[in-house]
Amino acid sequence: MPRPIDILEKSKGKRIFIKLKNGVEVTGILQAFDLHLNIWIEEGEERKDDKVVKFGSMLVRGDTIIYIAPIL
Amino acid sequence: MPRPIDILEKSKGKRIFIKLKNGVEVTGILQAFDLHLNIWIEEGEERKDDKVVKFGSMLVRGDTIIYIAPIL
Amino acid sequence: MPRPIDILEKSKGKRIFIKLKNGVEVTGILQAFDLHLNIWIEEGEERKDDKVVKFGSMLVRGDTIIYIAPIL
Amino acid sequence: MPRPIDILEKSKGKRIFIKLKNGVEVTGILQAFDLHLNIWIEEGEERKDDKVVKFGSMLVRGDTIIYIAPIL
Amino acid sequence: MPRPIDILEKSKGKRIFIKLKNGVEVTGILQAFDLHLNIWIEEGEERKDDKVVKFGSMLVRGDTIIYIAPIL
Amino acid sequence: MPRPIDILEKSKGKRIFIKLKNGVEVTGILQAFDLHLNIWIEEGEERKDDKVVKFGSMLVRGDTIIYIAPIL
Amino acid sequence: MPRPIDILEKSKGKRIFIKLKNGVEVTGILQAFDLHLNIWIEEGEERKDDKVVKFGSMLVRGDTIIYIAPIL
Repeated sequence: MPRPIDILEKSKGKRIFIKLKNGVEVTGILQAFDLHLNIWIEEGEERKDDKVVKFGSMLVRGDTIIYIAPIL
Repeated sequence: MPRPIDILEKSKGKRIFIKLKNGVEVTGILQAFDLHLNIWIEEGEERKDDKVVKFGSMLVRGDTIIYIAPIL
Repeated sequence: MPRPIDILEKSKGKRIFIKLKNGVEVTGILQAFDLHLNIWIEEGEERKDDKVVKFGSMLVRGDTIIYIAPIL
Repeated sequence: MPRPIDILEKSKGKRIFIKLKNGVEVTGILQAFDLHLNIWIEEGEERKDDKVVKFGSMLVRGDTIIYIAPIL
Repeated sequence: MPRPIDILEKSKGKRIFIKLKNGVEVTGILQAFDLHLNIWIEEGEERKDDKVVKFGSMLVRGDTIIYIAPIL
Repeated sequence: MPRPIDILEKSKGKRIFIKLKNGVEVTGILQAFDLHLNIWIEEGEERKDDKVVKFGSMLVRGDTIIYIAPIL
Repeated sequence: MPRPIDILEKSKGKRIFIKLKNGVEVTGILQAFDLHLNIWIEEGEERKDDKVVKFGSMLVRGDTIIYIAPIL
């Protein structure tokens, strides 16, 4: 029976949306993740109150994440 | 003796309501979950203060959840 | 020597009151629980500031609970 | 060498005072507790801002507790 | 190589000052503690905004503590 | 399959940007990290509301981190 | 490969600066620490909003720490 992180595996190489506990939203191309939901993305963008900051890579700590949504 | 997550098993393929710690409400079709109550839903909708955002899939992190209620 | 969760066992099938960390109060018929105090109730009702929402079933996450009181 | 929970053992059957992280104060007759400091009390009373609510039994979750004091 | 809790051992029987996360300050004679820094004190006093409450014994939960300082 | 912390390995000796939960931003040359994402940096700078404080070395505790981004 | 706490070892006997989650700053001579980053310092000083309190020894609980910086 697949676990949520097994299904997340299919989003590797695709852009995902991450909602963080501090209200910040992050998007990026999913490269890697682990059991704690620590996430490594490329072409990362942070967005808060319409202010956008672009990053190359980002390691988002799992315990700051509310939800992750693959971008269609 | 069934545990809460054993009973949740019966809601797979059905729509559930999830109340999050930040006041946000999420609904979606339950696809998968794990021991930490990480939840994978399809046809996800986030609702806060009457503002609705539709997602395809969502992985909701277990430690942000207050309660889950199967929608009748 | 009984642990608190051993004594909670006697409330199965009876209505309990649950006080949550976000100020919300929940009541329902206790069906199941686990070591983390994740709780499955039936005929669940959420109450906050005199606003009542009725649910069929609810899985309340243990780490959001302040206390549980069997209703006499 | 006794641990704090070994000393708490002597308060079984006696009334204790529990200060909670949300500012609420609870008193009751200590019946049982576990390693997480989950507490089962009888004749429980919750007190906040001079408002008192009486309960029969209460299971107080350990991680909401600031301190426990045996009532002399 | 001594760990912090090994050094704390020397304060047994002496008065310590405990600063808590909710701004409260507690003092008392250190009787016992465990690996989680749960603390048992005697002749406990709680102080907040110059209001002092005296207790006989107190079990302070480790995860509410910011720091502990032996009183000289 | 590489985990996020495996990819972080490539940033050793390079400057990284760390966003903390309390709103503070830290940059420095990555020297070492562990499984909890505790980070040791050299030539550390803390920045909050345009106020900059320079440090030699800094050990940033993993559980205060929102994300880490290598500086290009 | 050294971990952050291995590098911290070199600061033993030297003065360190500790930033805490509640905004308080603490300095002192590092005597001991453990895997949780619980810290034992001597000649401790707590500083908040320019108010300084001097302590002899202090045991600072690891989970209240944002970062530690050796003082040059």
